[in-house]
Amino acid sequence: MYIKKQRLLTPGPTPLYPPALQAMMRADMHHRTEDFRKVYRACLADLKEVMGTSNDVLMFAASGTGAMDASVSNLFSKGDKVIVCVAGKFGERWADIVKAYGLDANVITVPYGHVVKPEQVERALQAEPATKGVFVQASETSTGAVHDVEAIGRAIAKTSAIFVVDAITGLGTMPLDIDGWGLDVVIGGSQKAFMVPPGLAFMSVSPKAWKLGDTSNLPHFYFNLKKEKKSGDAGESSWTPATAMILALGEALLYIKRIGMADLIKNAQMLAQATRAAAAKLGLEIFSTASPGSSVTAIKAPAGMDSGVIVKEFRDRFGSIIANGQGSMKGQIFRIAHLGYFDFADLFAMIACLEIILNANGHPVQYGTGVAAAQELYAQAAVKSLK
Amino acid sequence: MYIKKQRLLTPGPTPLYPPALQAMMRADMHHRTEDFRKVYRACLADLKEVMGTSNDVLMFAASGTGAMDASVSNLFSKGDKVIVCVAGKFGERWADIVKAYGLDANVITVPYGHVVKPEQVERALQAEPATKGVFVQASETSTGAVHDVEAIGRAIAKTSAIFVVDAITGLGTMPLDIDGWGLDVVIGGSQKAFMVPPGLAFMSVSPKAWKLGDTSNLPHFYFNLKKEKKSGDAGESSWTPATAMILALGEALLYIKRIGMADLIKNAQMLAQATRAAAAKLGLEIFSTASPGSSVTAIKAPAGMDSGVIVKEFRDRFGSIIANGQGSMKGQIFRIAHLGYFDFADLFAMIACLEIILNANGHPVQYGTGVAAAQELYAQAAVKSLK
Repeated sequence: MYIKKQRLLTPGPTPLYPPALQAMMRADMHHRTEDFRKVYRACLADLKEVMGTSNDVLMFAASGTGAMDASVSNLFSKGDKVIVCVAGKFGERWADIVKAYGLDANVITVPYGHVVKPEQVERALQAEPATKGVFVQASETSTGAVHDVEAIGRAIAKTSAIFVVDAITGLGTMPLDIDGWGLDVVIGGSQKAFMVPPGLAFMSVSPKAWKLGDTSNLPHFYFNLKKEKKSGDAGESSWTPATAMILALGEALLYIKRIGMADLIKNAQMLAQATRAAAAKLGLEIFSTASPGSSVTAIKAPAGMDSGVIVKEFRDRFGSIIANGQGSMKGQIFRIAHLGYFDFADLFAMIACLEIILNANGHPVQYGTGVAAAQELYAQAAVKSLK
Repeated sequence: MYIKKQRLLTPGPTPLYPPALQAMMRADMHHRTEDFRKVYRACLADLKEVMGTSNDVLMFAASGTGAMDASVSNLFSKGDKVIVCVAGKFGERWADIVKAYGLDANVITVPYGHVVKPEQVERALQAEPATKGVFVQASETSTGAVHDVEAIGRAIAKTSAIFVVDAITGLGTMPLDIDGWGLDVVIGGSQKAFMVPPGLAFMSVSPKAWKLGDTSNLPHFYFNLKKEKKSGDAGESSWTPATAMILALGEALLYIKRIGMADLIKNAQMLAQATRAAAAKLGLEIFSTASPGSSVTAIKAPAGMDSGVIVKEFRDRFGSIIANGQGSMKGQIFRIAHLGYFDFADLFAMIACLEIILNANGHPVQYGTGVAAAQELYAQAAVKSLK
């Protein structure tokens, strides 16, 4: 037996920022105190800053799905006509949520790996002028594809519909001009580019979204956006907050502000680009060629190889957890994450391990060639940002 | 700016085993309680087990140098004739310590990178039959070279001298048959292959060493081997123990027992072998070709390049801390550690980073070729130990 460090290389949970983890040890504090209010207020303000929006930002003790649920139950009404873009497993989740609340959904489905085109949304909006909202994933984690939310937002802005964006893996991995592009609701989660464990969801809410919410008639209790906004303004959460998680997030946000959100995104983009270059060199195909994003790169397993073998070999040989395909893509693709606390050294190691696994499982590659492709990308692109 | 994770790649402090770090959080306990005695006893027993000796094992709240000091002040007497093997900075430390206590030292010095030959020790012993002790580094951390302690031990066993071995980076990186080879005193430290922060030193003491200690006349107080032995037998330390450190060490020892000391050593040996293969491929020379060890590999900087540049570039580009040369070797060599909690993924990343640094600083290498040399070594050697 040799030493195998456990490495979390999945698109959430992602590798944790150590000082954020350490900050959880400070949770021996009561949440209805000025000490904690200071932490909570800073978190909300820093979230708003790194998200780059003037919209309200709310936070919940919940996973990202909780905020997705909240956006529907708080802003829409039974029978509302909505458009749901489905390009993967998380698009399907939007469809499930709006169905659970009895909305009247026009579900635009494209095959896994593809994305819904802005024109498709535009046509659907024209076909149904009473549309109240459009739901999309900025980045579809299950396939690694990204939607053109800027163009979709432009189409929606001309209508009375609101634009609800699951940016859970989009935030910190792609530019998202929330105010400029008309992204009325933008949802994020702690265990993604924010570098802390799962347990916190957050969302920004635009005036247009608040206005629609005024007429909402759907039942909800725990997820109450208006109440949460009022609580947040007072430096509190409506219910008991996940104090340790918020301390962790606060610490991670300080780090993200220090790096700068633009460079955090650039970091993921460089790693994704280097991963695509390495994959090409190793004779592997990217799953979503049409619109590959930078939160995660989905790569097709070589012909005749189950991607589960690659996932298993990463764990057994190197102690590393990488993601298999989800849903119908299980066994077909494996996914390499770039979002949040990932660096080039992580990537070099991961590619070297992948080369060994491919060689040992019937897909011969020359050792070091994939790594070299990533190194070349680093040398070209990253050197500029040295200081 | 892009993300650069802080990586500790030095030959002590070494990367920390996370569950050991986490165990430090349990330090909210009093040291004179049965709860803590249980921890302390287990630590001593596990140390004895992984060191593989029937000799007594003692532990101190001190760095390794503290135990080196203790071995002199507790076992020898003023004016005692001793032999000191000096093959680097830590050999020089032995010379300094015996001088501080007024011993009469025959210092056998070899150039950095070389080692003292067993025959040299044998001849010195023959020349001075009254020699009371021989001091050596099992692994000389400053150069990466290892002494042949088995052969030196064989020579000493025939005399009345005791053999005092600084195995601070030797334990867990090279076979050390303490009882079989006559290693009378063997000294270790927590921040080496034991995977926890600095702060604890330990040593094994043979009956022959205890006997010599009976006649010792040197002053000491904090470091009192006999007192510490008695305390240890009662599950205690003589003075206030470093509770958090001991909790950490206890956790790391459980892990080391699970891996097995033999495989922990094999792990370091494989990484060292792979590092030498990569260095050769990259046109770099190993500093200690005569007797390269597996705790750390010292590599010469390419002609015309200060090794400090490599150290600085590792930090600036990749957030990684590697070691420069020490003493007169500063600027000449850089040192890559293998001891303790290091794995192949660490090494692949480290070599990929090194290739980038070499290329950027006037020593052109082909990207991925050094990594490939390490991957090949992994594929040949490590695959056997897969399970």
